[in-house]
Amino acid sequence: MITSYRNPLIKRIKRLRQRKYRREEGAFFVEGPRAFLAAVETGALIEAAVYSRQLLRSEACYAAITQLAARGVACEEVTAELFAAVAERENPAGIGAIVTAGSMALHDLAVNAGSLFIALVEPSDPGNVGTVLRTLDAVGGAALILVGNSADPFHPTAVKASMGSLFTVPLCEVDDLADVLAWAQQRGIQIAATSARAAQIYWDVAYQTPTLFLMGSERHGLPPAALAAADLRVTIPMQGSVTSLNLAIAASLLLYEAIRQRQPKQPELC
Amino acid sequence: MITSYRNPLIKRIKRLRQRKYRREEGAFFVEGPRAFLAAVETGALIEAAVYSRQLLRSEACYAAITQLAARGVACEEVTAELFAAVAERENPAGIGAIVTAGSMALHDLAVNAGSLFIALVEPSDPGNVGTVLRTLDAVGGAALILVGNSADPFHPTAVKASMGSLFTVPLCEVDDLADVLAWAQQRGIQIAATSARAAQIYWDVAYQTPTLFLMGSERHGLPPAALAAADLRVTIPMQGSVTSLNLAIAASLLLYEAIRQRQPKQPELC
Repeated sequence: MITSYRNPLIKRIKRLRQRKYRREEGAFFVEGPRAFLAAVETGALIEAAVYSRQLLRSEACYAAITQLAARGVACEEVTAELFAAVAERENPAGIGAIVTAGSMALHDLAVNAGSLFIALVEPSDPGNVGTVLRTLDAVGGAALILVGNSADPFHPTAVKASMGSLFTVPLCEVDDLADVLAWAQQRGIQIAATSARAAQIYWDVAYQTPTLFLMGSERHGLPPAALAAADLRVTIPMQGSVTSLNLAIAASLLLYEAIRQRQPKQPELC
Repeated sequence: MITSYRNPLIKRIKRLRQRKYRREEGAFFVEGPRAFLAAVETGALIEAAVYSRQLLRSEACYAAITQLAARGVACEEVTAELFAAVAERENPAGIGAIVTAGSMALHDLAVNAGSLFIALVEPSDPGNVGTVLRTLDAVGGAALILVGNSADPFHPTAVKASMGSLFTVPLCEVDDLADVLAWAQQRGIQIAATSARAAQIYWDVAYQTPTLFLMGSERHGLPPAALAAADLRVTIPMQGSVTSLNLAIAASLLLYEAIRQRQPKQPELC
């Protein structure tokens, strides 16, 4: 049982609170039974697990620990005090794991006739990034592409909001939007950019072909060059004094409109 | 200028961090230029404003303070230290106000042919409550109804997520769901309850009449009795292992589907 704050594993978990080290080490720490079990069940690369018998009450987690240990993954028991010290949450449930941060290159993404992508340019809120992953998972989306100086998808808030979808939805981190645009054009993916000033309402456009929804940051939207480079520009109608929707809400409306259009039509309504 | 932590206004602001006192006093504290200006612009009942000249950089906020003071609202300058002590945010912008918490009775809500309502039964996340208010505002929704032991719509996280919509969208807090159901039936409002197990997809149902979308908590969904009492039950389709969407995402999909159906049809797509 680990009892010391100076244990290398404990020091590493604390270090991974900082994005700098998450980047350098290509790993992040997840905590809580839900995220831990999602990582195990989806086959995420788990480098090590830590748990506290004093805190952990989930039978499913103990079973998963046994399973991981049998595969040779380091599963270390720690004191409740030590767990509480490394946990970000209040009242921690006593289970966490260091997981390899899996990010793909654009050219490794599978593209087929039904693929739906979201590309977010410099989103600033990790909760939004996680929530978009969750909705992408629900619609069978092909990938989330984060462009430029984006919020960290491996930030604890993003991990929590994704509800496990971080382990199942392919993720790309791309420095330059031009690379995303070139890749989409080359692969025959329609690029629909969102703008409050676009003339077309998002539900008046067809999304039968592979589609990438391109969206700007919470505060600034998309730069004009990005809007100009897209195949089409769509807006989400808003009434009154409201000037924008939450970014994850807007992304979800677009994704669900695409899958609505792709379902068999209901003649009585249409 | 207020310099003492023992000043009654400062003590009141600190007290309003707790829901108990927000309830008792029917007021809440908003901070930051965006929320403050939204309160002023929408005509919310502002009981008092506090600001710090050392921190506040927004010309619009100074203009609003002048305007409030001319109407007789107490606008008190405080030291930067004192402002930082009452602020919930890091790096506070030096502006805040105590606002009357406006909640309406069901029977005072206006109902017309196009009214759209969301009723959330015991939502636990104030961020979701605020985000639902923001989307309701964007679709011109009639009201948000919070039922039972709900997250506080006047919690700082809800206020922030609502982006000012807390001041414009009518809000009802109701103890008993039966009262909501009886009111809706009496007023001719169609009740569409959401359930993962419903047979009908939400976009296959018509929302041309006044509609109330009834939704359960993030964790438990709606109780069976609530589902049975609704006029219809709808589901949001999900793929793979995903069992639910974020509550605010789900509410927004329903609201936008209703307004999509109410728009003039595009013959080329339909």
